[in-house]
Amino acid sequence: MKVALVLGSASDLPVAEKAAGALKSFDVEFRARIISAHRTPEEAADLGRKAREQGFGVIIAFAGMAAHLAGALAAHTTLPVIGVPCKGGVADGLDALLSTAQMPPGVPVATVALDGGLNAALLAVQILSLSDKALAERLDAYKRRLADETLKKDGELKLPL
Amino acid sequence: MKVALVLGSASDLPVAEKAAGALKSFDVEFRARIISAHRTPEEAADLGRKAREQGFGVIIAFAGMAAHLAGALAAHTTLPVIGVPCKGGVADGLDALLSTAQMPPGVPVATVALDGGLNAALLAVQILSLSDKALAERLDAYKRRLADETLKKDGELKLPL
Amino acid sequence: MKVALVLGSASDLPVAEKAAGALKSFDVEFRARIISAHRTPEEAADLGRKAREQGFGVIIAFAGMAAHLAGALAAHTTLPVIGVPCKGGVADGLDALLSTAQMPPGVPVATVALDGGLNAALLAVQILSLSDKALAERLDAYKRRLADETLKKDGELKLPL
Amino acid sequence: MKVALVLGSASDLPVAEKAAGALKSFDVEFRARIISAHRTPEEAADLGRKAREQGFGVIIAFAGMAAHLAGALAAHTTLPVIGVPCKGGVADGLDALLSTAQMPPGVPVATVALDGGLNAALLAVQILSLSDKALAERLDAYKRRLADETLKKDGELKLPL
Amino acid sequence: MKVALVLGSASDLPVAEKAAGALKSFDVEFRARIISAHRTPEEAADLGRKAREQGFGVIIAFAGMAAHLAGALAAHTTLPVIGVPCKGGVADGLDALLSTAQMPPGVPVATVALDGGLNAALLAVQILSLSDKALAERLDAYKRRLADETLKKDGELKLPL
Amino acid sequence: MKVALVLGSASDLPVAEKAAGALKSFDVEFRARIISAHRTPEEAADLGRKAREQGFGVIIAFAGMAAHLAGALAAHTTLPVIGVPCKGGVADGLDALLSTAQMPPGVPVATVALDGGLNAALLAVQILSLSDKALAERLDAYKRRLADETLKKDGELKLPL
Amino acid sequence: MKVALVLGSASDLPVAEKAAGALKSFDVEFRARIISAHRTPEEAADLGRKAREQGFGVIIAFAGMAAHLAGALAAHTTLPVIGVPCKGGVADGLDALLSTAQMPPGVPVATVALDGGLNAALLAVQILSLSDKALAERLDAYKRRLADETLKKDGELKLPL
Amino acid sequence: MKVALVLGSASDLPVAEKAAGALKSFDVEFRARIISAHRTPEEAADLGRKAREQGFGVIIAFAGMAAHLAGALAAHTTLPVIGVPCKGGVADGLDALLSTAQMPPGVPVATVALDGGLNAALLAVQILSLSDKALAERLDAYKRRLADETLKKDGELKLPL
Repeated sequence: MKVALVLGSASDLPVAEKAAGALKSFDVEFRARIISAHRTPEEAADLGRKAREQGFGVIIAFAGMAAHLAGALAAHTTLPVIGVPCKGGVADGLDALLSTAQMPPGVPVATVALDGGLNAALLAVQILSLSDKALAERLDAYKRRLADETLKKDGELKLPL
Repeated sequence: MKVALVLGSASDLPVAEKAAGALKSFDVEFRARIISAHRTPEEAADLGRKAREQGFGVIIAFAGMAAHLAGALAAHTTLPVIGVPCKGGVADGLDALLSTAQMPPGVPVATVALDGGLNAALLAVQILSLSDKALAERLDAYKRRLADETLKKDGELKLPL
Repeated sequence: MKVALVLGSASDLPVAEKAAGALKSFDVEFRARIISAHRTPEEAADLGRKAREQGFGVIIAFAGMAAHLAGALAAHTTLPVIGVPCKGGVADGLDALLSTAQMPPGVPVATVALDGGLNAALLAVQILSLSDKALAERLDAYKRRLADETLKKDGELKLPL
Repeated sequence: MKVALVLGSASDLPVAEKAAGALKSFDVEFRARIISAHRTPEEAADLGRKAREQGFGVIIAFAGMAAHLAGALAAHTTLPVIGVPCKGGVADGLDALLSTAQMPPGVPVATVALDGGLNAALLAVQILSLSDKALAERLDAYKRRLADETLKKDGELKLPL
Repeated sequence: MKVALVLGSASDLPVAEKAAGALKSFDVEFRARIISAHRTPEEAADLGRKAREQGFGVIIAFAGMAAHLAGALAAHTTLPVIGVPCKGGVADGLDALLSTAQMPPGVPVATVALDGGLNAALLAVQILSLSDKALAERLDAYKRRLADETLKKDGELKLPL
Repeated sequence: MKVALVLGSASDLPVAEKAAGALKSFDVEFRARIISAHRTPEEAADLGRKAREQGFGVIIAFAGMAAHLAGALAAHTTLPVIGVPCKGGVADGLDALLSTAQMPPGVPVATVALDGGLNAALLAVQILSLSDKALAERLDAYKRRLADETLKKDGELKLPL
Repeated sequence: MKVALVLGSASDLPVAEKAAGALKSFDVEFRARIISAHRTPEEAADLGRKAREQGFGVIIAFAGMAAHLAGALAAHTTLPVIGVPCKGGVADGLDALLSTAQMPPGVPVATVALDGGLNAALLAVQILSLSDKALAERLDAYKRRLADETLKKDGELKLPL
Repeated sequence: MKVALVLGSASDLPVAEKAAGALKSFDVEFRARIISAHRTPEEAADLGRKAREQGFGVIIAFAGMAAHLAGALAAHTTLPVIGVPCKGGVADGLDALLSTAQMPPGVPVATVALDGGLNAALLAVQILSLSDKALAERLDAYKRRLADETLKKDGELKLPL
């Protein structure tokens, strides 16, 4: 199963790149699109409606301010939709976080941290790993590496400098 | 021209009623619908697309939490869309206010105060009054009445009680 | 009908320029003023009172912090008043957003996003388009162009870079 | 010199009463009005313009939500204007607090706590006490009484109950 | 695959019940536990570590205030962890929302709306549906029912009442 | 060593009682006072200055809104001062939390959660336990009891009800 | 009567300078001090206690973060105390604003906008003008100049540039 | 007794250094570690469990965003744990502040200001000073020095510059 990366605007590229890089490192196929919930709503609806039959397993949506994109996609699919609120509006992105997370009953969006492109990708991989043992193993390895890097930094820490 | 009142959920009725009452008192025709940006997105798109040709001049959308409804309608029409954020989520409705107001460039939503059903209707009447002298006169009369009521309360004020 | 652009201070010029540029591209006549609700309140009241008879159809007010300008104009007119809260105070402009949007019953302000000069102009054009078919058509064209630009960026997207 | 109490709406009465009661207990003359910055703006401007010549020394304005009243009065007078933001909108009154306090350079408003009717009156008395020795003495007595009440409660405290 | 419902405290029961009810209606097996990230941290770690091998596919964690539970579980598993921030602390639960969503790079939590027990369950079902066609069909049916209910309410709407 | 409980006002009693009850259950001696940073500042300074020589080891201060009490005490002592922000002002007590926690460099206050009377007492006991083995053991027992209660509730959990 | 400018730390100098410059331009005598509510609390108490007898009419306090300085001074005097919250902590200074404005009943602080040094000085001049006709006239002139500058900028405005 | 400095990530080093420098100047032994609540949770649990027996008296934890580290350590120890929320997420660190301070009943964290490394160290020294007279004296000297520096700056202040 593939992952769809949907950017609300080209300005979300730096955050989406973190997701793309992570998916690539896990050997998970993905397709990236720029689709706006407000400027190209038909494309958004279309992507949502067809995503499952086109072989997508997870959709990741990137958007800032009144970040409706993840919700707009979720309205048209029963696939899990991950929302990545992007910084830039009120209070360093509180508007995007609330617009993404506070979805009404019946239509969930899995919200990650502001600018959390990497975590969105990892969450997608975790989801796909449920039916893909190789992925689950790669996640275990990733988790160990994450720990090892922290342990290494711990070993090198000198304080006071 | 008519006004469309679109409620994201039945729970928005008390706020929408204030709008309906005001429109009625101004003799402005309106049609009220319950349409959810997330549960009935096709209907939302459809309403937006056809609103102008069906004789609507303004759309008023009521929604709480991640209030996407006004934006979802605005994505499909070039009519002015008024968004009424409804209380109930984070910080007495800050989520709904930000989700309604912080629209991206190209697709405006005219946001009024939280639970501001009356003001949404007045704004719609103001818009319609541009090509309807009778409405403009009724607005003038309303404004005078508003002032008179305040003056009357001022005249009756006793402090300390 | 013309649009009045009212800047609370010269520091709002960059945001107002986005509105002016958009109005110009739609061939909508406008007049720009610097009028402060607090430093030149008589001028604000005067502009509000005479705007309709002077041929204005919409007023757009730009202000930051305790952004009272839109409300101060709305107090004196029954024309639709659009408020553009400008960034710069608390939490990237939360103060201006709340001061503009949270108007009391009876005196609406159509609030757009923080620094949303472009959207304020588009909203004004939408309002004027109700009685101006040519404008409505230009809005349709603009909406298509907006979509086309997004589709073009979508077509050019390369991720990972 | 008298104090003007200006209520933006009749709903501010409970907060204004605390101010009225305090002024009375200090034997400070006051006049209470209901004047809305948005519904009766001429009256607000008028009150501001004439306040000094009519023998007022301080103006106290009570308003909630997009609380513009204090600022609207301050625009028309060089008397000190005290703003009392009233609870009820976003986040227990954060909107009113920001709308009252965040005034632009040149036109100050002396903001007290949300629903701070008593403190607004005390601040007015403090201001008037600069040229009124008797008032200054009453303030000293009040301050001692305030301390004594706290000391008394301290003496009676039983914990655990 | 089963779903684990983990409640940080017994006070989260009303929210967790919405999730349990939904899972039941989808015929998804689940196990509910009360485990605190701070009071029984070993149990939390243990549950996280063994969840995958014990046949769980998704973990849903319910917690309020400094809501660490979802993150504490995510630290010990590569299963998708859904966090449900519960209301009750600062600004109607802003603390719980931020504590759940703002996870550091490497350890994602899928955050849903405040008190969003139903959506958490639906998200879990969506995740499990990727490898379970019957579930996918039930989700489609649910989505249609959701739409139908809204359409029904739309049909019955009378405004003004 | 004793603990000083200092209440900024009698309205903080319910929160302070939780602290008193906890200290009592740990057999830690305490003295409770009502002292206001603003109404009885000399008493606050005095308590701070003499606390160490009078055998106090920790001071716990309870205050709401612009909660200055903990800071005012900390200004006069080198004992650890624990601040308990109390709910009631803006956004369910955000004002009290920020006023207590955001102390300037040089004068720390140990801030606990809003209305966190119990945790303030536990923190005080933890501090005193550094030189009191019996207390450390009681803390261990308390921690086990805390876990056991959670485990018991876990064992009794029935979901769906 | 003189004005006391009290800076909580040397970092508040840029804001205090705006106040000093304004007072100078109004020919109002002032004395500037650096006194910390937390680092030199005795000096703060002392200044508060003696301010009136030493010929001060108003105290202006500058402080950021948990901005207690204005409140600490107000605890010791019945003179009007103006608080200037300074930017730099949470959400561009929301902490300082709340810590300054949300004073408890009985001890008011006149709060101006964040970094509002100029307005604090103007408010002080307004207060002193109640018993000083020359100052009142200078304030009138200042107000006219303020208007004239805005009118001049209005006259020069060119939009689009 | 030693102090443990625990950094959630290497990016917290600048804040931790302020703590390390202060502890050094007080001649308090400390050990610094990089341990993540989410990436190396076993190490965090281990450190918490063994801290008291290894001679630590206080733990200081540094973390940003969903800052769980202090709470994760507090879950495993009865030593006092000081949490230093670090800036960088929502609203200049409001997320970290709430995630650190809003701990549930039973497991306290002593929270200091955002980026408050120095105050965390001072608080630790204050705690250790309860059973270490030399430290208490050094704190007294520090407090005097702090006052003297402020007095010196006060003496040198020139305003207007």
